[in-house]
Amino acid sequence: MSITSGIGLRRIDHVGIAVPDLDQALELYVGTLGGECTHTETNSEQGVSEAMVAWPDGSSQVQLLAPLDENSTIQKFLDRQGPGLQQLAFEVEDIDHACAVLRDKGVRLLFDEPKTGTGGSRINFAHPKDVGGVLVELVEPVASTTPH
Amino acid sequence: MSITSGIGLRRIDHVGIAVPDLDQALELYVGTLGGECTHTETNSEQGVSEAMVAWPDGSSQVQLLAPLDENSTIQKFLDRQGPGLQQLAFEVEDIDHACAVLRDKGVRLLFDEPKTGTGGSRINFAHPKDVGGVLVELVEPVASTTPH
Ligand SMILES: [Co+2]
Ligand SMILES: [Co+2]
Repeated sequence: MSITSGIGLRRIDHVGIAVPDLDQALELYVGTLGGECTHTETNSEQGVSEAMVAWPDGSSQVQLLAPLDENSTIQKFLDRQGPGLQQLAFEVEDIDHACAVLRDKGVRLLFDEPKTGTGGSRINFAHPKDVGGVLVELVEPVASTTPH
Repeated sequence: MSITSGIGLRRIDHVGIAVPDLDQALELYVGTLGGECTHTETNSEQGVSEAMVAWPDGSSQVQLLAPLDENSTIQKFLDRQGPGLQQLAFEVEDIDHACAVLRDKGVRLLFDEPKTGTGGSRINFAHPKDVGGVLVELVEPVASTTPH
């Protein structure tokens, strides 16, 4: 088996949405759209204040991402194109393997080594220019807290 | 119970991605990202040629959307901002009820009455300006083919 025999994506973990204000966004996604906020977190390395929102029949969540400061990637996204869909994240079994598969296929990753994402997960991003204009995130969850 | 007591969203049904070429996009999502193409369809009312792509552990799919012609909403999206994340679709139990709830909360819908979506489903869209910049789709699946 070559390294490219399987990338090991399991499912859509979350869809990331850039929002200017987290509380207002929660009012929309929980209040109006009937989701349940399952987790909130501040990730200063990623420059975001975030909330995960779930609906009863699916495991894929919405990740609301508000900027912590002006240098946040999310603030730059908001300045460039306004609030909206920002990233598509896949759960992966082994992020080091998945990143190696992508690099082998000529897809650039944003980080040399995975960084820390939601709930202590390990994350990296494929460069949108190499994957059809989408900011694709890979998420290797902390084993014991994987929601299945 | 008031009409707004529950909108009835069940899960993220799919994430729609605008692509210039469906075959190339399938090469990326099936070939590189290891998904399985579960359905293809041409929807001339919506002006799209589309493919649904699934991963083994999740029910939320990627919907690749290529324009059928220059007047397609997808072509206009591609002209405006290039390929990328275009819509977020939720499965809903009763789309007429969900649309009434949204209208009651001041959210505009793109169509007066639901139109036909993937696999004979009934769909409508909330206006992005009223839901934080995201094109939110509601999907009421054909009962007998709901994947659960
Ligand atoms: Co994310
Ligand atoms: Co759709």
